[in-house]
Amino acid sequence: MATVKLMTDTEAEAIPEVKAVFDDIRATRGSDFINNIWRALAQDPQGLERTWEQVKSVMAAPGALDPKTREMIYIAVSAANGCSYCVHSHTAAARAKGMSDDEHGELLQIIGLAAMTNTLVTSLQVPVDPEFEVS
Amino acid sequence: MATVKLMTDTEAEAIPEVKAVFDDIRATRGSDFINNIWRALAQDPQGLERTWEQVKSVMAAPGALDPKTREMIYIAVSAANGCSYCVHSHTAAARAKGMSDDEHGELLQIIGLAAMTNTLVTSLQVPVDPEFEVS
Amino acid sequence: MATVKLMTDTEAEAIPEVKAVFDDIRATRGSDFINNIWRALAQDPQGLERTWEQVKSVMAAPGALDPKTREMIYIAVSAANGCSYCVHSHTAAARAKGMSDDEHGELLQIIGLAAMTNTLVTSLQVPVDPEFEVS
Amino acid sequence: MATVKLMTDTEAEAIPEVKAVFDDIRATRGSDFINNIWRALAQDPQGLERTWEQVKSVMAAPGALDPKTREMIYIAVSAANGCSYCVHSHTAAARAKGMSDDEHGELLQIIGLAAMTNTLVTSLQVPVDPEFEVS
Amino acid sequence: MATVKLMTDTEAEAIPEVKAVFDDIRATRGSDFINNIWRALAQDPQGLERTWEQVKSVMAAPGALDPKTREMIYIAVSAANGCSYCVHSHTAAARAKGMSDDEHGELLQIIGLAAMTNTLVTSLQVPVDPEFEVS
Amino acid sequence: MATVKLMTDTEAEAIPEVKAVFDDIRATRGSDFINNIWRALAQDPQGLERTWEQVKSVMAAPGALDPKTREMIYIAVSAANGCSYCVHSHTAAARAKGMSDDEHGELLQIIGLAAMTNTLVTSLQVPVDPEFEVS
Repeated sequence: MATVKLMTDTEAEAIPEVKAVFDDIRATRGSDFINNIWRALAQDPQGLERTWEQVKSVMAAPGALDPKTREMIYIAVSAANGCSYCVHSHTAAARAKGMSDDEHGELLQIIGLAAMTNTLVTSLQVPVDPEFEVS
Repeated sequence: MATVKLMTDTEAEAIPEVKAVFDDIRATRGSDFINNIWRALAQDPQGLERTWEQVKSVMAAPGALDPKTREMIYIAVSAANGCSYCVHSHTAAARAKGMSDDEHGELLQIIGLAAMTNTLVTSLQVPVDPEFEVS
Repeated sequence: MATVKLMTDTEAEAIPEVKAVFDDIRATRGSDFINNIWRALAQDPQGLERTWEQVKSVMAAPGALDPKTREMIYIAVSAANGCSYCVHSHTAAARAKGMSDDEHGELLQIIGLAAMTNTLVTSLQVPVDPEFEVS
Repeated sequence: MATVKLMTDTEAEAIPEVKAVFDDIRATRGSDFINNIWRALAQDPQGLERTWEQVKSVMAAPGALDPKTREMIYIAVSAANGCSYCVHSHTAAARAKGMSDDEHGELLQIIGLAAMTNTLVTSLQVPVDPEFEVS
Repeated sequence: MATVKLMTDTEAEAIPEVKAVFDDIRATRGSDFINNIWRALAQDPQGLERTWEQVKSVMAAPGALDPKTREMIYIAVSAANGCSYCVHSHTAAARAKGMSDDEHGELLQIIGLAAMTNTLVTSLQVPVDPEFEVS
Repeated sequence: MATVKLMTDTEAEAIPEVKAVFDDIRATRGSDFINNIWRALAQDPQGLERTWEQVKSVMAAPGALDPKTREMIYIAVSAANGCSYCVHSHTAAARAKGMSDDEHGELLQIIGLAAMTNTLVTSLQVPVDPEFEVS
């Protein structure tokens, strides 16, 4: 259960700002499916619009990183932050954008290794080497 | 300051297990530079060896993901986990492996966006869509 | 499922320290409802009492911040820490203390924005400006 | 040290998108001071602009929550996420917007209490009470 | 639901590397039970083997800390990291290795207290005392 | 630099509630040293008292766990939460209470391993085995 109601398509149709975002999500993704995060955010139309604009701009615009790599980075952050929903949705998205089982397996090993060394370094309070400084 | 002493090269020379790992780090990386995490871990030679074997196996072995992408994923996890040292060392490593300024900029935007939606989703307690289920 | 049994009212009646805390929770809140965190903590009566005293003293005593604002801050921390139960219970509490839908929407946007800039700053390792120093 | 160079005012003057954001920050805040996060983000002008638009829209626009409360929520998230820079900058901002010492003291007690019960609840894996459900 | 399929015993029998790890888990633990983390990791046999070798080496080898204390430390980290599954599995393991209800209660109080002071310290940005320095 | 002033002994002498806590810290620990967390918390005498009562009650009272084990659990949580100050102060405390170099080394390996499997489990969204249920 969410802490807000999930907005149905019927309800969304009645609120112009929400309808506009839902329409744009569908057009951008070429799919009729609106997943639950948008239905939850829709209770605050301005927050919905702001969040979608960010997601669209960062994840869907052309750039130096390919869509699959972007999704794998998203999974990494979501796992480190412990967000179940986000791990599920971005693992599905990464697969849809071509992530192979081998790539998924390697991604998870890097995520796990990084979490391990992050915590070791924090336990040891390792000082930053001057060699890493941006001159 | 670290919570343990950082081992000098002279001290490392006197402990065969530590010397073996330091030698392997230098050979694997083709560089004489041993950064501080290894000098801190060296106080526990078994822990040093175990950690290095993991890092070598996950980050340096051939696989489906290229070295630059692996480092960018490492940065993402390290940032989410708030590890200063790791952000510094893996940003340096990603640059050494070819990460451009544009790629760095996009990486950061994805990391920031993911952290934002992770926390929104957690605040909203959004239920996982059945469409994301692995059948 | 919890990692300990949730204590029923019948069981609580038989343990004087637990009964005393449950009675005080009911009196302080003016409600018969004892939510699950207290039923779980009750397996360690001393821990139950210590936790309740803290919660009562910080959340229910008069002070500079009003009850609604206190609950909204609690939601913010709970979301950042990824605690599902706490997000649910304190969102319910904030609403009971007068949080409007608009306030909830703004709260979530601040939480999300803060998580984003927190992670950007950590990725960039931004040094603290001397202007922020407490002189 | 940051993982990117901090942009000086002279450098910023030469990049129209950066100059525009710096000008808008100064105008919005009524102060000549540009703190380090913006100087770090400026290396990626598009990321700078996107981040500033978010911050301006969420923190500086009129709304249901007053500016001081917004900053206190920001501190709460930043503390939970372990962001040193953000704790410093938003504590300074909250004070500038009127947070008293008493309010600061209470804020910290709520942040600490929430972190405690968040972790207790996670250790106990307390199930969400049906009473908290949004009907 | 997991983001990968959980491997059944029948499937595991057909993959030599997986079978070898499952056999070793059963032999090391003296039990036929293979819990879900291994069935999920098994989709990447190399990752499975690497993870099991770490767990076996750190948790099952003789050393300075007794098995019960090791599991209690594991619970502490898992609670701080918000990992439901890990809290469940390691609470069960700690009990199987002799953790009493009193020890569990005290463990939780320490975990909660540490989370509280961690966040207070971060909110206050307390500088490290020179007395804590390793000379 | 802290976000509040650190209270000096001279200032503390002038505030009865602060003086009482500082005196009790010195008496409980049998040492004249007051570390910085208490000097920062002292700006809010009520928060200082509440925090010290918790620390004293959880860490200094007799119980099922010995003082060294309590400090090692504290280090584990502090490392997972990324609190530099706390890692420093509790590593010093654990050593003062008898933690050997071997125990420290093993502690760190467990902390690192747990962080790794926590994140793997979250990435895989492993469902809790029914065998772990508390019946």
